[in-house]
Amino acid sequence: MGTIHAPDQAAKLAARFRATRAFTEKLCEPLETEDYVVQSMPDVSPTRWHLAHMTWFFETFVLRPFAANYKPEHDEFEFLFNSYYNAVGKPFPRTKRGFLTRPTVRQVYAYRKAVDAGIAALLESDQATPEVFERVELGIHHEQQHQELVLMDLKHVLSENPLNPAYRAGAARAEATPAAATRAAAQKSPAPQGAPRFVPFDADTYEIGHEGDAFSYDNESPRHKTYLRAYALAHRLVTNGDYLAFLNDGGYENAVHWLSEGWATVEEHAWRAPLYWRLVDGAWHEYTLAGLVPLDLARPVCHVSYFEADAFARWSGRRLPTEAEWEVASRGVAIDGNFVEDEELQPRALPAGSAGTGSGLQQMFGDVWEWTQSSYAAYPGYKPAPGAIGEYNGKFMCNQYVLRGGSFGTSRTHIRSTYRNFFPAHSRWMFGGIRLADDA
Amino acid sequence: MGTIHAPDQAAKLAARFRATRAFTEKLCEPLETEDYVVQSMPDVSPTRWHLAHMTWFFETFVLRPFAANYKPEHDEFEFLFNSYYNAVGKPFPRTKRGFLTRPTVRQVYAYRKAVDAGIAALLESDQATPEVFERVELGIHHEQQHQELVLMDLKHVLSENPLNPAYRAGAARAEATPAAATRAAAQKSPAPQGAPRFVPFDADTYEIGHEGDAFSYDNESPRHKTYLRAYALAHRLVTNGDYLAFLNDGGYENAVHWLSEGWATVEEHAWRAPLYWRLVDGAWHEYTLAGLVPLDLARPVCHVSYFEADAFARWSGRRLPTEAEWEVASRGVAIDGNFVEDEELQPRALPAGSAGTGSGLQQMFGDVWEWTQSSYAAYPGYKPAPGAIGEYNGKFMCNQYVLRGGSFGTSRTHIRSTYRNFFPAHSRWMFGGIRLADDA
Amino acid sequence: MGTIHAPDQAAKLAARFRATRAFTEKLCEPLETEDYVVQSMPDVSPTRWHLAHMTWFFETFVLRPFAANYKPEHDEFEFLFNSYYNAVGKPFPRTKRGFLTRPTVRQVYAYRKAVDAGIAALLESDQATPEVFERVELGIHHEQQHQELVLMDLKHVLSENPLNPAYRAGAARAEATPAAATRAAAQKSPAPQGAPRFVPFDADTYEIGHEGDAFSYDNESPRHKTYLRAYALAHRLVTNGDYLAFLNDGGYENAVHWLSEGWATVEEHAWRAPLYWRLVDGAWHEYTLAGLVPLDLARPVCHVSYFEADAFARWSGRRLPTEAEWEVASRGVAIDGNFVEDEELQPRALPAGSAGTGSGLQQMFGDVWEWTQSSYAAYPGYKPAPGAIGEYNGKFMCNQYVLRGGSFGTSRTHIRSTYRNFFPAHSRWMFGGIRLADDA
Amino acid sequence: MGTIHAPDQAAKLAARFRATRAFTEKLCEPLETEDYVVQSMPDVSPTRWHLAHMTWFFETFVLRPFAANYKPEHDEFEFLFNSYYNAVGKPFPRTKRGFLTRPTVRQVYAYRKAVDAGIAALLESDQATPEVFERVELGIHHEQQHQELVLMDLKHVLSENPLNPAYRAGAARAEATPAAATRAAAQKSPAPQGAPRFVPFDADTYEIGHEGDAFSYDNESPRHKTYLRAYALAHRLVTNGDYLAFLNDGGYENAVHWLSEGWATVEEHAWRAPLYWRLVDGAWHEYTLAGLVPLDLARPVCHVSYFEADAFARWSGRRLPTEAEWEVASRGVAIDGNFVEDEELQPRALPAGSAGTGSGLQQMFGDVWEWTQSSYAAYPGYKPAPGAIGEYNGKFMCNQYVLRGGSFGTSRTHIRSTYRNFFPAHSRWMFGGIRLADDA
Repeated sequence: MGTIHAPDQAAKLAARFRATRAFTEKLCEPLETEDYVVQSMPDVSPTRWHLAHMTWFFETFVLRPFAANYKPEHDEFEFLFNSYYNAVGKPFPRTKRGFLTRPTVRQVYAYRKAVDAGIAALLESDQATPEVFERVELGIHHEQQHQELVLMDLKHVLSENPLNPAYRAGAARAEATPAAATRAAAQKSPAPQGAPRFVPFDADTYEIGHEGDAFSYDNESPRHKTYLRAYALAHRLVTNGDYLAFLNDGGYENAVHWLSEGWATVEEHAWRAPLYWRLVDGAWHEYTLAGLVPLDLARPVCHVSYFEADAFARWSGRRLPTEAEWEVASRGVAIDGNFVEDEELQPRALPAGSAGTGSGLQQMFGDVWEWTQSSYAAYPGYKPAPGAIGEYNGKFMCNQYVLRGGSFGTSRTHIRSTYRNFFPAHSRWMFGGIRLADDA
Repeated sequence: MGTIHAPDQAAKLAARFRATRAFTEKLCEPLETEDYVVQSMPDVSPTRWHLAHMTWFFETFVLRPFAANYKPEHDEFEFLFNSYYNAVGKPFPRTKRGFLTRPTVRQVYAYRKAVDAGIAALLESDQATPEVFERVELGIHHEQQHQELVLMDLKHVLSENPLNPAYRAGAARAEATPAAATRAAAQKSPAPQGAPRFVPFDADTYEIGHEGDAFSYDNESPRHKTYLRAYALAHRLVTNGDYLAFLNDGGYENAVHWLSEGWATVEEHAWRAPLYWRLVDGAWHEYTLAGLVPLDLARPVCHVSYFEADAFARWSGRRLPTEAEWEVASRGVAIDGNFVEDEELQPRALPAGSAGTGSGLQQMFGDVWEWTQSSYAAYPGYKPAPGAIGEYNGKFMCNQYVLRGGSFGTSRTHIRSTYRNFFPAHSRWMFGGIRLADDA
Repeated sequence: MGTIHAPDQAAKLAARFRATRAFTEKLCEPLETEDYVVQSMPDVSPTRWHLAHMTWFFETFVLRPFAANYKPEHDEFEFLFNSYYNAVGKPFPRTKRGFLTRPTVRQVYAYRKAVDAGIAALLESDQATPEVFERVELGIHHEQQHQELVLMDLKHVLSENPLNPAYRAGAARAEATPAAATRAAAQKSPAPQGAPRFVPFDADTYEIGHEGDAFSYDNESPRHKTYLRAYALAHRLVTNGDYLAFLNDGGYENAVHWLSEGWATVEEHAWRAPLYWRLVDGAWHEYTLAGLVPLDLARPVCHVSYFEADAFARWSGRRLPTEAEWEVASRGVAIDGNFVEDEELQPRALPAGSAGTGSGLQQMFGDVWEWTQSSYAAYPGYKPAPGAIGEYNGKFMCNQYVLRGGSFGTSRTHIRSTYRNFFPAHSRWMFGGIRLADDA
Repeated sequence: MGTIHAPDQAAKLAARFRATRAFTEKLCEPLETEDYVVQSMPDVSPTRWHLAHMTWFFETFVLRPFAANYKPEHDEFEFLFNSYYNAVGKPFPRTKRGFLTRPTVRQVYAYRKAVDAGIAALLESDQATPEVFERVELGIHHEQQHQELVLMDLKHVLSENPLNPAYRAGAARAEATPAAATRAAAQKSPAPQGAPRFVPFDADTYEIGHEGDAFSYDNESPRHKTYLRAYALAHRLVTNGDYLAFLNDGGYENAVHWLSEGWATVEEHAWRAPLYWRLVDGAWHEYTLAGLVPLDLARPVCHVSYFEADAFARWSGRRLPTEAEWEVASRGVAIDGNFVEDEELQPRALPAGSAGTGSGLQQMFGDVWEWTQSSYAAYPGYKPAPGAIGEYNGKFMCNQYVLRGGSFGTSRTHIRSTYRNFFPAHSRWMFGGIRLADDA
């Protein structure tokens, strides 16, 4: 979180700020007003709330402390749109975000505009100190995180509707191609892409964690040494076809594959498949942001919990990677892939024969977040930022597991090799998938 | 539920149908689109759902069975907007009504228009049999019931918002008058309107229940004999001032006043006052459909549960009336009072000195529904209607208590002396209040 | 609750006190120490708790106020063994009664002995006023109520054990007879005793409720007039065979038979049969106080909720009686039947051909408590006793339904025609069954 | 888990088996029969269940597979006393262990005797293969674990009783000494033992995990390299006095010290102090196995959750150690301290001035389990044992945190430097305490 900006970077930063804010609103273009309001479970926030909260972040951490002339129009928004920063004040109860109908969507957009103007003015003014630059940069990354949350949360909201509404007519375009139809038709006898190759890595003492001047979150620091035994990573993600084989082998009916808490969760919630898989007239379908479509066996599996990822790995005779293994392996890999800017809005199938070309890892960035077996914890020597901003990451370091690499809902400019995402082991509504690892 | 309509009544019925449907939409005029969507607790339904469900009722029970040429545009609405008629099919889960964002408000209004046109055409056609007339009449009353539910539910939704939004700028107009301000200012030393007078009634075998040709619900029949001991009813409703005295006397802190289940409810939910009372800077206020206003001691108390009504009555040394006592007493009383058409949207204070004028009961109709001590049960010889319509009333005859007389949210043309409303003993979000009774 | 005892009745009362107390302990003879301790659900109390609470009742309401020389050995028992008398003090939480291991069973028996001695001494002393007599009499009836609770609660505790332990080797002796074996074998083709006869009663204004000097609870008073339409009662109880026909006809799978709250309960708890019915290798069995035995089709059905009783009655095309109908019908019937003193410990089958002998009602007393459709409410003019004893009955008059006639777990000297038992509509662990009624 | 026993070790193993089994029964000597039965929360098991389950372990994993002539007397015990080994069969529901009254305590002791005889015979027979030796050894360690669970669980059961019964008259003997009384009296102005010294350790690549032939659990293997930065450990445990300072500084009222999930837990359960602290007439007391005693400020704090340990460490400006840091530091330390064989049954205060004597760490073994910040996870290369015994450890490697060093409830022969205990972050009923760490 520590880049130092030269004064002449103000214009560039302002442009990035505008572009990021505009992209948020572009993501909302397909929405009806009603879609902005609903909270379909406690983990989900209404889109309206996200739009206001991203704005609140800039108002609370940039404008209020640094913009001398800024006058908040709505003092009560400080309370309404605080997510969890106790140092700012007691937040409005998370589970009631979906009970609010005011401020309206229109008013929230007006709030965004007012804060946008405030930030623009501040960045042009002589109050634009390096600390302001840092805070705006943090706010941009915060907004990008919430862009993905908007997609995750909207998908969950829309999925509750028996009409299976699509988020956007143009979304998930690929599923209508003849290739996908063929793949879906072949559910009963999955013709997989062949088993994944396992790419080996040597035992050594490595360094992991962020280094350099570019932006990163505090939880990626400090860079530190860690010893790794020899290991191997699968060259590709686990596909729907791979996962269906687990399911068809009684994966959800046999406690032996599961962590104890995982099995209890399977039984309590009667899990029988990934979150959005649906059996329609005997054929597996998947609810996507383009609506309900036949399950495409070649695409990476998505919307599985840590428990399911771990159980699949045990059933496969493999294991999940640690986050250090993943990070070391990702170093030479270009940050390229299927990101939110591609607007494909679902993970992408590898081209046929992709396993054969060279020794490289594929799908490391984008497509789906990859569960690691690592509990989310402080790096040795970690110190959270002082004040409310220090609540950003550190206080969640308990009972969560790390995911790496970004997804089809992540911005290309947001992800990096050291980036640590984290969710509880039972969570399924984010875009989480699986890459296998093994001891070498 | 049994009026027979002569064929020339079609035009009158069509006019009533149009007026009722239009009044529903008038009630929604102050709303923002967002207000239509939210379900703030399982008992509450989103306004959008009510608008669609009232329409579903006409479509399901009139158009589908009787209008030969009617083509439903959306078959899935039969499932989405069924409330609880198992004979029609398994309804969409009640607790998830607030998760639906589609059909949108605009689409629901279009659905209303289509069904309105269908009903109008049917009533003008030669398919307009007496049974059609009866079903349309039932649908009108059903719609009026839901008009009150819309107001109850909206009030609950808006009350969850810390901004205290008003349903309508013009609503609850009286609270700004100097008289109300004075009354509110006097909270510490309530200057009540004097104790209520108790109007006596003789012991006798009375008949209660519906008779005659006018419309009524099946639960008001058959008319039957019941023996009543001598009793007396208070000439007026219990006011906020009366109730505040109970509260200030430790009413919510002393188990001795309460039913066992009532006391458990008080403790579980930490009840300290009626649902919408709020202590602001040491002074009691009330959230109303016009927003948060100082508590007006002269108005009838509202939004109390059966448990609170019963506890207040015990504390007063009185009791609640039975529904038979209430009905017998109401017979000579004109159906006049503060109804939804008055648009006052809160109970009205009696004029000063009103206790002195004659022997009559006041506020029997309108203002607030009056809790009785009677469990909601079948009248002797009761037979529910056959088929799905028979699910309207009978299956709720368990663990509910009867309220009588209508409220400020009820239509003047909907209420009658034999009308039986019913809610569980802990419910507070409807417009329920208290009239005391006593043995003579 | 108001008999006046002449001073020379002290000896008789003391004898009844001793006999009642001794019978309690006789009921506990088959128990292991472990059986005294467990609370298998919140409604259930450990036997140890019952033994102490019955004793607490005499100590709190007789010895402490009236026995000048009585010194409680354990002041903390006042708190530990108070059931729900808030006027005595805040009771120990009901749901934690099963967490207490001390005082031990042995200590509780010692407590009983000490209080027994205190009561004996008081009754012989000149402090034995009429009020003392009344309180002791009340305590005797209270003890008899808890004797039945001991059996109900023990049955529930033991039923949780997959070993199906019997309460007592000698209990439920009849099930081993060849006749019962034959009846059980015939489950698939129930050879019922023939349909019940319906005994008619005329419409009239009747008086119900307690009259005279004999003991009764306050909830049976005052005696009052009530108008009844003509009605009829089945001459016998509903049998397991009758009920099995309902079950086999899909009774538990069809919402149309059920109250709305009843159907929700069936779905929530996955009810498929009465509480203690168990399907073993395709044949219905019943867990009884003698262990698991084949279901005897001729015995009255037991352990059904109000919801099940009501659903069965609707399916039968009949209804449940009101409590007034039951009481009027019971007047000429001798208080005879299958009571706890018989130690049969399950309901008894009528002898073959019993329907043919005369016009009388059978099984009105004993066997199983009979659900009525009447919500438990105050009789007109009811006044609870002053002080803590007034909490005995009145505060439960909400969301409960009345049962009449006593069961195989009730004392012959405890039951009477006006006796009102009451339980929530979903309760099944007491000895509740069904008698059908109909309009005449 | 891998010692190989020479055939002549049978006698020694049999002696250890007998001693361990006898010690279990010695721990139960102070109990009343009633104490054996109760389950005061789902985490707790009744003592009766523990006694049977330890025995079940030997029966299931030793006698059934290896003792040709062994005839189980009670086949149903396999189901009743299985804790969580799904490979053995679906266990009896954990939450219902407290509902069982049979087999009785006496029968459970008979079951123990029968299995003891079986093991003795097997060890003397020629069927006593190395695998039998290993299984018996595992069973001994399993029994020792459950000895500590018996004490933890009993303490929780007895603590629910408002009579504050003592587990044993002789337990926790020290609290009556004048020194303790003085320390307790000084609560308001804690005279601490001085701040702890921090003992430094160098950065290096260390090896941790089990090595050698002695017994260990599978989760301690394989031994593996891990890189540690320079760090320091406090020379002593955190005391009640230290912790009271945190509490008095508003520790439980300020979200800033807490993990997000920790703060939610504090609010949900209204935590205000460690589990067994109780404010009596303004003075802190502690419920111990000897009953309720004044809080002794010099003793180590006990019964704190991971959340509390972590919050205390943040408040102190320090942190918790990792399990690798703890293990490396413990290497030179003799396994000596306050163990269950000492029968002190509470953590012991260090002698005054103990901080001054040399550079050594104190209280590393015994007294209280020390929370580490390490999530319980598989060591690199970990492989669970095959079959049901493989369920012993591995399937709990999720959402639990590691504790090290043993407690006053642990056997001296059970603990070792590599031993990994684990509990969920909210758990407080085990004997868990705090040692601070810091970066060097």
